[in-house]
Amino acid sequence: MERLYSYDRLSQFVRKVFLSIGCCEEHANTATAALLSADLRGIDSHGIARLSGYVRLWEVKRVEAKPQIKVIHESPSTAVVDGGSGLGLVVAPFAMQLAINKADRVGTGWVSVQNSNHFGIAAYHAMMALEHDMIGIAMTNASALVAPTFSIERMLGTNPICVVIPAGNEPAFVADFATTTAANGKLEILQRKNQEAPEGWIQDINGKSSTDAHALKKGGALLPLGGDREHGSHKGYALGSIVDIFSAVLSGANYGPWVPPFPAYVPIPENQPGKGIGHFFGAMRIDAFQPSETFKRHMDNWISRFRKAKPVSGQERVLIPGDPEREIEMERKVNGIPLFESVEEDLMQLGQKFNFKL
Amino acid sequence: MERLYSYDRLSQFVRKVFLSIGCCEEHANTATAALLSADLRGIDSHGIARLSGYVRLWEVKRVEAKPQIKVIHESPSTAVVDGGSGLGLVVAPFAMQLAINKADRVGTGWVSVQNSNHFGIAAYHAMMALEHDMIGIAMTNASALVAPTFSIERMLGTNPICVVIPAGNEPAFVADFATTTAANGKLEILQRKNQEAPEGWIQDINGKSSTDAHALKKGGALLPLGGDREHGSHKGYALGSIVDIFSAVLSGANYGPWVPPFPAYVPIPENQPGKGIGHFFGAMRIDAFQPSETFKRHMDNWISRFRKAKPVSGQERVLIPGDPEREIEMERKVNGIPLFESVEEDLMQLGQKFNFKL
Repeated sequence: MERLYSYDRLSQFVRKVFLSIGCCEEHANTATAALLSADLRGIDSHGIARLSGYVRLWEVKRVEAKPQIKVIHESPSTAVVDGGSGLGLVVAPFAMQLAINKADRVGTGWVSVQNSNHFGIAAYHAMMALEHDMIGIAMTNASALVAPTFSIERMLGTNPICVVIPAGNEPAFVADFATTTAANGKLEILQRKNQEAPEGWIQDINGKSSTDAHALKKGGALLPLGGDREHGSHKGYALGSIVDIFSAVLSGANYGPWVPPFPAYVPIPENQPGKGIGHFFGAMRIDAFQPSETFKRHMDNWISRFRKAKPVSGQERVLIPGDPEREIEMERKVNGIPLFESVEEDLMQLGQKFNFKL
Repeated sequence: MERLYSYDRLSQFVRKVFLSIGCCEEHANTATAALLSADLRGIDSHGIARLSGYVRLWEVKRVEAKPQIKVIHESPSTAVVDGGSGLGLVVAPFAMQLAINKADRVGTGWVSVQNSNHFGIAAYHAMMALEHDMIGIAMTNASALVAPTFSIERMLGTNPICVVIPAGNEPAFVADFATTTAANGKLEILQRKNQEAPEGWIQDINGKSSTDAHALKKGGALLPLGGDREHGSHKGYALGSIVDIFSAVLSGANYGPWVPPFPAYVPIPENQPGKGIGHFFGAMRIDAFQPSETFKRHMDNWISRFRKAKPVSGQERVLIPGDPEREIEMERKVNGIPLFESVEEDLMQLGQKFNFKL
């Protein structure tokens, strides 16, 4: 049961919610655009469905609606940003813009962020680089749900990596993925349908591979990309670790099992070594390597050659990273964004809290 | 059947081979150290076993023993290097050093390389950053053996990524991995033993999952990390693509199916869009983000916490990326490097060619 809502209608609602918790106009606009980019691109788990979660974090004072976002360390090509406990949806665009500004001046810019919160989808931030003819990179750590290879304990978040590369006539290359076999959102879909999970997605409380889609709630863990050692889970574990270290050890945020959880009712881990959650952003100016036109001609060639690769039987085509999300976005901009009944109800309650309607 | 050789003995031999094909003293020393670092670290497929392959590439004039290595484009934090068709074993350390020099000045350095050849293991180059208190990054593309998700065609190399992060009292974090489920070297071991490959490593000529360890020679392909779509192969495909684009589209090298193969007898693809194979290197100065001492204290904390994670039953411990290779290196420095009989014979023939003994 899903109903369609226009982007504009949802956008007005989300903006009013952010204004209601005390965000300034500029921050409310930025946070709204960042949050809803997930719904537009079909990453429904990271969009408006999380809005009430952000509000609850504000209610328990874990999110500051008027954050003091500060640059606390920098070099010509790098910076560390203190997000002032603000919404990641606001802190991340600030940090990404700083990376872009540095790339403008010295070729590349790299910004590590402490004291932030969940930033929505990585692609929104990384894609800011595109209009500047830059490659954009965004990553974030998150609370521990993932067991490293051979570990029973959850030590890492789903720690996504996004890399965005501009092209010429072809649409940009946009890779944005969790460093686990499957994102938590996919597991939630199986839970709703009461279906089993494929082997290689999760392990149970004893560290044994499990197909129980509810294993996570019973003390199990998500598995790193690869699934098990024989299929390269040590590589997914390494990738998740790199995201954690770039985002949090470089910045002074919390890392590993100490990253604060998204649900406001889950207690914050004890003896935290840093501040909030961490992100990492990069921008590389194309013409710091070669003329933009040359690069884009070759990117078009790269993309069209890969698109033309012969598909296996039963598949129509070989996709370029970003194809599915771009196609969903085109469709949803025209037809609207579908919301589950449970999300609708959640948003209506949220509206009542602040005295306006969805 | 393996015999042990001391590092010094192999080093003298390799150096003499590189001098014999016309390398200068400095290049012969660098190439020897880079090549043998693979044998020391237990990556036997990338070390001295490949020496005769490099010589054959020189014989067919695809490797230039006295390359003109040039910086052909740069900004304060970036450069593009033309490797002059040299040994990747020599070109890569040049480019990595350039990245380090730029990081020294502006915080980070990023170098994309065209017109190079195979560079051995990525970790050797990335680890150059450690003594400068920098994070090191190295990647390279390679000839197409890997089928993207849904593709029958081989479009990407095994395209490894290495990220090296300094710690304090703990040994450095060293992640170095192919962006496929399994490296080609592991498949070769199964071929030698006439064993089947696990599901998820390879597909056959029709794009169907296969357990035939020889499928690659019969027109099959390696699979990206993840194995199939359900287990996240689109993520491994994206990672391999990012390595390809950073290494080759940014630099002007060959990319995708046009990358020249390592075996000298395999013809070079037609209509190549670039020069040679491509690499990409990065160096980030730790203190461009925060004081080195603070960072290292937290890295030590990160590493020791992950090491203490409770292991699953049947496993002794949770490993930190780089642990296995470092332990092999310590052992082999003492006891020597084991060579397969076939590798020994190959090296003896190589010695005869140049009139000296192994």
